[in-house]
Amino acid sequence: MPLKKSWVASANDETHPFPLNNLPYGVFSTNGEDPRCGVAIGDMILDVTAAEEQGLIVLSDEPLFDLPFWNPLMEEGPAVWAALRDRLTTLLADGSEDRNSVEPLLVAQSDVQMHLPLVVSEYTDFYAGRHHAFNVGTMFRGPENALPPNWLHIPIGYNGRASSVVVSGTDIRRPWGQLKGPNDALPRFAPSQRFDIELEMGAIVGTPSDGPISVQEADDNIFGYVLLNDWSARDIQAWEYQPLGPFQAKATATSISPWIVTKAALEPFRCDTPAREFELLDHLKDVGPMLYDIDLSVTMAPAGQSATTIAQTNYKEMYYSAAQQLAHHTTSGCPMNTGDLLGSGTISGPEKQNRGSLLELSWGGKEPLTLDSGETRSFIEDGDTLTLQGVAKGDGYLIGFGDCTGTVLPALDAPYKRS
Amino acid sequence: MPLKKSWVASANDETHPFPLNNLPYGVFSTNGEDPRCGVAIGDMILDVTAAEEQGLIVLSDEPLFDLPFWNPLMEEGPAVWAALRDRLTTLLADGSEDRNSVEPLLVAQSDVQMHLPLVVSEYTDFYAGRHHAFNVGTMFRGPENALPPNWLHIPIGYNGRASSVVVSGTDIRRPWGQLKGPNDALPRFAPSQRFDIELEMGAIVGTPSDGPISVQEADDNIFGYVLLNDWSARDIQAWEYQPLGPFQAKATATSISPWIVTKAALEPFRCDTPAREFELLDHLKDVGPMLYDIDLSVTMAPAGQSATTIAQTNYKEMYYSAAQQLAHHTTSGCPMNTGDLLGSGTISGPEKQNRGSLLELSWGGKEPLTLDSGETRSFIEDGDTLTLQGVAKGDGYLIGFGDCTGTVLPALDAPYKRS
Repeated sequence: MPLKKSWVASANDETHPFPLNNLPYGVFSTNGEDPRCGVAIGDMILDVTAAEEQGLIVLSDEPLFDLPFWNPLMEEGPAVWAALRDRLTTLLADGSEDRNSVEPLLVAQSDVQMHLPLVVSEYTDFYAGRHHAFNVGTMFRGPENALPPNWLHIPIGYNGRASSVVVSGTDIRRPWGQLKGPNDALPRFAPSQRFDIELEMGAIVGTPSDGPISVQEADDNIFGYVLLNDWSARDIQAWEYQPLGPFQAKATATSISPWIVTKAALEPFRCDTPAREFELLDHLKDVGPMLYDIDLSVTMAPAGQSATTIAQTNYKEMYYSAAQQLAHHTTSGCPMNTGDLLGSGTISGPEKQNRGSLLELSWGGKEPLTLDSGETRSFIEDGDTLTLQGVAKGDGYLIGFGDCTGTVLPALDAPYKRS
Repeated sequence: MPLKKSWVASANDETHPFPLNNLPYGVFSTNGEDPRCGVAIGDMILDVTAAEEQGLIVLSDEPLFDLPFWNPLMEEGPAVWAALRDRLTTLLADGSEDRNSVEPLLVAQSDVQMHLPLVVSEYTDFYAGRHHAFNVGTMFRGPENALPPNWLHIPIGYNGRASSVVVSGTDIRRPWGQLKGPNDALPRFAPSQRFDIELEMGAIVGTPSDGPISVQEADDNIFGYVLLNDWSARDIQAWEYQPLGPFQAKATATSISPWIVTKAALEPFRCDTPAREFELLDHLKDVGPMLYDIDLSVTMAPAGQSATTIAQTNYKEMYYSAAQQLAHHTTSGCPMNTGDLLGSGTISGPEKQNRGSLLELSWGGKEPLTLDSGETRSFIEDGDTLTLQGVAKGDGYLIGFGDCTGTVLPALDAPYKRS
């Protein structure tokens, strides 16, 4: 499928992440006014809330875009998702007869503040990238025992904290936590010294379910995808995670990209999961290509410095697709709701430069990275800005998500008013 | 504090769980009508939604009880919580001048269906009962290594699944899951054979926070308590929980009592946590008695049979209070919201009959229980009804929560429509 032409000129640039083929959904505000739903087209945003108010978009008897999040549309299901995409394509296509009505509803992206595009119902984070699991396992248990015995049979995941999810651009405060080094007799309470990123994709559940669903049903229920940075305090994690998993190490913040890229926009980029070492049980078997070919990268920029690319990888490196993760999530009967967010797990590739966390890139701090400025890093230092980017490369066009970025602020001086 | 007298006669029985001293909050419906907020008094429920509509309760310019959950009141904060309790006490006290207006708003508890009393924002489950952790640890690692090294320093917890929380009386469907016995070469997908309960208390966050809070602030932010049964599939858990903790094993259902007992009602029952083996770090130190003396029990009734009491324990057996758990939960900066539910962790006591799970009671299935009928049980069988009860014993009165009960239904025949 080639580039679809729009009357919004900037959308026709082959190197622009938001052509008419993309149409990602976000929430924006201008000049401190109330946030509204919008769709990115080139350098502009179409104010979807206004377009609905003016009768240019009519999908339901009730308004779907009068609240500053996309959950009401998600609840409508795949037929309405498709109808909106069709209508937006018509309104914004080259030669659209609605151009005169639509053009006044465009806002420059440079003039807006972005907000969380959805109300996150619950957040689950997986551990379903094999290279990452192997790297981390090797560091802690050696290469022979790197993958836990269950890893090749189920997409291992844990419940995260939805309240921690923030939109790209939100500053991230370095957390305090209980820390205990291997040679310390007792733990202490101090700011994390091993604060890290995890490069992930997030899948957003659109259609709810209330019992076990198949991989195909799971794929059908997914609304779209975001970039996701699962900020992680490795030193807090090391002390707390046995036996019930990560908790406060992962609760400071989880950043997502400002734009939700729909499954429809990613359709041309579907690809298969990697070869299986063990055949999956029937309920988790692949039933079609459900990963996506999306190039991913991470940059790091110390305060006042330009950014250095520290990792490059691809979403197709995942061992399990989001559909398989969602299917597994429902095996016990766990109800899933509109707005549930599923982190893929860290997406590393086979080579050192493909590693999606500083833990892996610096091999636990033993091999610090050198940035373009000559500075070195094992983990994040105060003032560093970390940015995830993702792009699917079509035939003469790109599909992007917008940057998923955050700057780490120093820890609070004294986190408690002791009472 | 002695029994407070009410003009609702049944509330003055010294053995009744809902005297005027209690005033627990729930949501009920009659004859299939819309659910409403209510407070239990003796055998009756005062329709609080109606009392507000009729101007008998006025706490805010906006209605607080026009939605079928208690979150809007929780959001108002401690001064309004106290004002409501004062007003309800006035309306329902012996000699109340409002009796004639209030009496028509009473509904018999025997005529209602109960609903979830709150919208659960997020659900966290802790592992903060020492006897339980020791018992489980002993089974898996021997008594010398029973407690993980971090256990005496932080209240270990993990995020659970809010969508799984159901009100007492909801049937529980035995889950399917991926299982692998120690001698199996490969896992299989089958109904859980080791389905269990966990006897817990749940603390409900009323006041939100957005950064680290002290133990005292945490106690102030708690709105009230419920009984909580964390249904657990031990065989699913055994295979899945390494390295990131329990996931589908705990996602089938979590039952809570229909009534939220307020912190105010429990005030006379505050007690200290047990002696510390290690001094806690400052941010987790006890700053007053924040556990409660609440007798707890579990009964099991096979289909068509009467119930056998299988465990008796007390909430004061906990090593960490809910306030300490909530304070720990915020150390990383994790935002907490109105309606967050914190499970205490299984509450076992020192003796065999004090164990709050079948895993412990049957010692991993090696020592099956014998019920009054002569039947034996290692784990739950289809048709069994499990019921948690809790009661604080005052000077001539009781404070109860209502039963927290659930009947286990057979697993689905075939959980998937394979597509």
